[in-house]
Amino acid sequence: MNQFGRMFRIMLFGESHGECVGVVIDGCPAGLTLSKKDFILDIKRRQPRLKGTTQRRETDEPLIQSGLWKQKTTGAPLLITIKNKDTRFEDYLPFRKIPRPGHADFAASKKYGGYNDTRGGGQFSGRLTAALVCAGVVAKKILAPVEIEASLLQAGGTTQIERAVQAAIREKDSIGGIIECRAKHLPVGLGEPFFDSVESQISHLVFSIPGVKGIEFGSGFSCSKMRGSECNDRIIDTEGKTATNHSGGINGGITNGNELLFRIAVKPPSSINKPQQTINLQTGEEAILSVKGRHDTCIALRTPVIVEAVTAIVLADFMLIEQKIPRVME
Amino acid sequence: MNQFGRMFRIMLFGESHGECVGVVIDGCPAGLTLSKKDFILDIKRRQPRLKGTTQRRETDEPLIQSGLWKQKTTGAPLLITIKNKDTRFEDYLPFRKIPRPGHADFAASKKYGGYNDTRGGGQFSGRLTAALVCAGVVAKKILAPVEIEASLLQAGGTTQIERAVQAAIREKDSIGGIIECRAKHLPVGLGEPFFDSVESQISHLVFSIPGVKGIEFGSGFSCSKMRGSECNDRIIDTEGKTATNHSGGINGGITNGNELLFRIAVKPPSSINKPQQTINLQTGEEAILSVKGRHDTCIALRTPVIVEAVTAIVLADFMLIEQKIPRVME
Amino acid sequence: MNQFGRMFRIMLFGESHGECVGVVIDGCPAGLTLSKKDFILDIKRRQPRLKGTTQRRETDEPLIQSGLWKQKTTGAPLLITIKNKDTRFEDYLPFRKIPRPGHADFAASKKYGGYNDTRGGGQFSGRLTAALVCAGVVAKKILAPVEIEASLLQAGGTTQIERAVQAAIREKDSIGGIIECRAKHLPVGLGEPFFDSVESQISHLVFSIPGVKGIEFGSGFSCSKMRGSECNDRIIDTEGKTATNHSGGINGGITNGNELLFRIAVKPPSSINKPQQTINLQTGEEAILSVKGRHDTCIALRTPVIVEAVTAIVLADFMLIEQKIPRVME
Amino acid sequence: MNQFGRMFRIMLFGESHGECVGVVIDGCPAGLTLSKKDFILDIKRRQPRLKGTTQRRETDEPLIQSGLWKQKTTGAPLLITIKNKDTRFEDYLPFRKIPRPGHADFAASKKYGGYNDTRGGGQFSGRLTAALVCAGVVAKKILAPVEIEASLLQAGGTTQIERAVQAAIREKDSIGGIIECRAKHLPVGLGEPFFDSVESQISHLVFSIPGVKGIEFGSGFSCSKMRGSECNDRIIDTEGKTATNHSGGINGGITNGNELLFRIAVKPPSSINKPQQTINLQTGEEAILSVKGRHDTCIALRTPVIVEAVTAIVLADFMLIEQKIPRVME
Repeated sequence: MNQFGRMFRIMLFGESHGECVGVVIDGCPAGLTLSKKDFILDIKRRQPRLKGTTQRRETDEPLIQSGLWKQKTTGAPLLITIKNKDTRFEDYLPFRKIPRPGHADFAASKKYGGYNDTRGGGQFSGRLTAALVCAGVVAKKILAPVEIEASLLQAGGTTQIERAVQAAIREKDSIGGIIECRAKHLPVGLGEPFFDSVESQISHLVFSIPGVKGIEFGSGFSCSKMRGSECNDRIIDTEGKTATNHSGGINGGITNGNELLFRIAVKPPSSINKPQQTINLQTGEEAILSVKGRHDTCIALRTPVIVEAVTAIVLADFMLIEQKIPRVME
Repeated sequence: MNQFGRMFRIMLFGESHGECVGVVIDGCPAGLTLSKKDFILDIKRRQPRLKGTTQRRETDEPLIQSGLWKQKTTGAPLLITIKNKDTRFEDYLPFRKIPRPGHADFAASKKYGGYNDTRGGGQFSGRLTAALVCAGVVAKKILAPVEIEASLLQAGGTTQIERAVQAAIREKDSIGGIIECRAKHLPVGLGEPFFDSVESQISHLVFSIPGVKGIEFGSGFSCSKMRGSECNDRIIDTEGKTATNHSGGINGGITNGNELLFRIAVKPPSSINKPQQTINLQTGEEAILSVKGRHDTCIALRTPVIVEAVTAIVLADFMLIEQKIPRVME
Repeated sequence: MNQFGRMFRIMLFGESHGECVGVVIDGCPAGLTLSKKDFILDIKRRQPRLKGTTQRRETDEPLIQSGLWKQKTTGAPLLITIKNKDTRFEDYLPFRKIPRPGHADFAASKKYGGYNDTRGGGQFSGRLTAALVCAGVVAKKILAPVEIEASLLQAGGTTQIERAVQAAIREKDSIGGIIECRAKHLPVGLGEPFFDSVESQISHLVFSIPGVKGIEFGSGFSCSKMRGSECNDRIIDTEGKTATNHSGGINGGITNGNELLFRIAVKPPSSINKPQQTINLQTGEEAILSVKGRHDTCIALRTPVIVEAVTAIVLADFMLIEQKIPRVME
Repeated sequence: MNQFGRMFRIMLFGESHGECVGVVIDGCPAGLTLSKKDFILDIKRRQPRLKGTTQRRETDEPLIQSGLWKQKTTGAPLLITIKNKDTRFEDYLPFRKIPRPGHADFAASKKYGGYNDTRGGGQFSGRLTAALVCAGVVAKKILAPVEIEASLLQAGGTTQIERAVQAAIREKDSIGGIIECRAKHLPVGLGEPFFDSVESQISHLVFSIPGVKGIEFGSGFSCSKMRGSECNDRIIDTEGKTATNHSGGINGGITNGNELLFRIAVKPPSSINKPQQTINLQTGEEAILSVKGRHDTCIALRTPVIVEAVTAIVLADFMLIEQKIPRVME
């Protein structure tokens, strides 16, 4: 179901090398000031610019085609589309027969009876995250003054990120990374113990970002090694401020007023130039595949802004549910 | 929203020291043979028996109060309740004023304006997982022959689990753990790239289990340190079988026919006898709290069957959506 | 899907002659004062008392088994059950083979592969509306000071209701009726043009009441015969008050501040003592059926309070969505 | 919530005189053959052509911008947009101040704090039904061989439709109508008793069509005047065929295998040239309004194909839920 949210709802569509990608945002409060320039910064942050990111060049101009009038949201659904321009889909045709290891080629072909769009991975593409970023821009605006910030902590297992990327490029290989996200100035009481805990909703959306394989809140996996007396965050004032933040700002699934904090693990992109062994599904014989086309060596370089976006989407939904954001903004 | 699922839906209710806990299951296929004895094993697995688990003793007999006739499901909603019998709620009364560090006391009191049931944590209690286990039993039955198995890999940071528990008990402290879950014999094609990936749905429910702070699929956080050439699972036959399983049986959010595999991190229980510093919300002064009552030293000992349950619930929903399970069973 | 609502959500369960009927209410604001005596009046209004209603006698005492503490809602789900006591299910056994004309016997048996509970119609019974009435009581309380009132306008095609019922009893037949419902003091702006118009949501729930075959808002079917100049309600003050109310208080799917008004058509109960022709599904031969057991001659006599209940449920959901009701009540 | 459906889901967007109207269809089975020419007939049926329909001229060419590849659906969401070309929004500017009687002007302005798009009614416009028709075309294709047919039974209270329209035009007034819809070849067992009865779901969507004020299934309001012995449809074969169809093909909320049958009441359009009395919201004084612009005298002339569309959308959803339509079509 390409939909998410209860009050602030998004519906995603589009393919990597089809006509466009985009999102419909339903439930955005009326009266929010919005224009194309709001999107520039975050869209730029998602674009490939650095070494280690794809050669594909898209202008990624978001078109707001409904729900906006005189630069104000109207309360009706916002349709935002981004055209695909730099498409070369002949690059991707053989993967139905010779599936890429680590990619959805095989599973998707089975699931959709071979009808899925294989051009650039079709729907199974990081390209769709451009639309998530757009929805995130809107969510961030209605969340203000909440601040959300994500950054790449390490890539290829090291904090020497640039060096790790260079090495992977040289070897025609790819690397993953770890991203941390923080949100400040959240009210106490967002989320519900069952089943819409803050962790539940954030992880739900985070795992829609291609390549994410793990998430931990606060001290996460390290908590499993701590004693309770160490892991429990001491409350130091009547606003609930705590001395440490092992819980990541969430107790019992709901925000406790401290910084929301989580980290995610991004795997290395599956498409690499380096020759890999796979299978020819028609003949059943082994095949050697060297993936041509334009790929990211380290998609994690571009992922932080997407993590911010999905976090903002989840939080905007919670804020509307808890009536912390009005239905008409001033 | 105490509800989850699209075709196989559950709604949870109850409190730790209220009258009962339970679940309504909506969308269970008609014709499934079901009786009380189906629940015995899994309910027993969740119960405290070992050292390091609470002294509270409940018979946990599930009452199936609707949706069943002549030991067959009818297609109507199943109401399953479990009475709370061994309740001592006076133990929990002071926590509104002096919140336990690491617990939802503070956040819940703010969220619900002080009206939340604080007896034993009320809704914020592991007690509700008894109802999840019941729903899991039903889900497992409709999933057969899919096999789901979870186990505790380590506690307190070590595989010497019993020893770690003993030490924590001695020190009136608590410890966490890491649980691994595997599901076999799944068809290819469950899940959707956006937003209901297998990872999204499983993590959504897993993070409803009290105390879970992290999840990783396949090699998870380790993937972030691998090269693509290492992380990509080589396909070795036309059924999609892979030589390794770094992906945890999921590509692009959908099952690839290999074993589904994930691990979760469980934090140490927040309620410990050891004195802790906290705050008196009325006076704003520091307070020392030594939590009385009956607590688990290591809740992770009891969590594996709950992880199996939520996994089964998610998979049953996917199987109905993908029409791999009929609406009337034979 | 036995669930309804976005913010104020209900999940229904139970069967006519099973153990109980009931409802889980999710999303009820915390802090609402609630006790058994709140239910007495509306439950009594639904009970058979008059001539023309069934001989079945139930005390219909609602048990609130979760979500309530110290007579205040806690913000957690409310489980409300009503035991079935006066059950005689042998009355209903033959209908799998010899389906009642006008009843769901045939269609339900096909749908559920013969596993559906046929005792008293199982889930296809007016008995479940007792649970709707309970949910309606809660909804009405959170809606105050909104007033909802439904009444039976005519039965058997006449306003001489008692006389029509007597005649039907004499002839061992049954009659239907028309019920009108009004809600006062609603704010402007509930509902949405697509797809959750006030008409959409109310009709959705109203058609869950067994026996309802039609609904019209405001002047309804009569509007189709009017000119626009006649049908348009003239606005007479800046609050939006109108001189007439052909629209039933709804324009473009949203409330306009005038009285919400609709009427529904209830068909005559299908179970009658009078012999009817039907078919024996096993032999394919014609059969004559005279339905024994205890039936309502005119179920519409008992339906108004149920109509009020579903209206209140819909309106409570809208009010929470539009933030006209807080999440914590004082 | 501009969304509807569980398995076959639609999300609507757009405004009357904005850039476009359209729909995202989520959950459409993969492998369905689809092209622009599939839409021609139904789009034409919705267009104004006859006397009594608006002068606005739109080509209404549907652009399928995602989810389709090589004229087959891919299983990914279908984005279908229709550009608005013949827009003249200056016609609509005064209605914020001087609301049209019978129109959503007043209620919408209050609801959205004055930010709603008032050009041509914005989202409160029959224009959006062009998108519903597109979704209906897709739904009809996956439903084949189910046949759905709607027609206008009467307009302005008479079957002499053309004459009634002419009279209304002459008087610068408008008229409503009654539309009947039938669906053939449905399987037994679609729908659920609570809360997604066939009546519930169809009425939910039907009341999203602007101007609909009533719906009745089978004999509907006439049932309220019948005896049970008359209203009960006699079953005449083991397939459940009935001699009459007072139930409209639905018992207990689920299809019984007979023709699905319902009628709806459409009110006269509120925008008329004839001068009407209303109020100036700024001054509080009475005002006389003669609505300029291009309007339908009898929108009911164009509504039948929209009724078919929403019926098809509901039925496609039910068919997927009941696994009567596969997830991949051949």
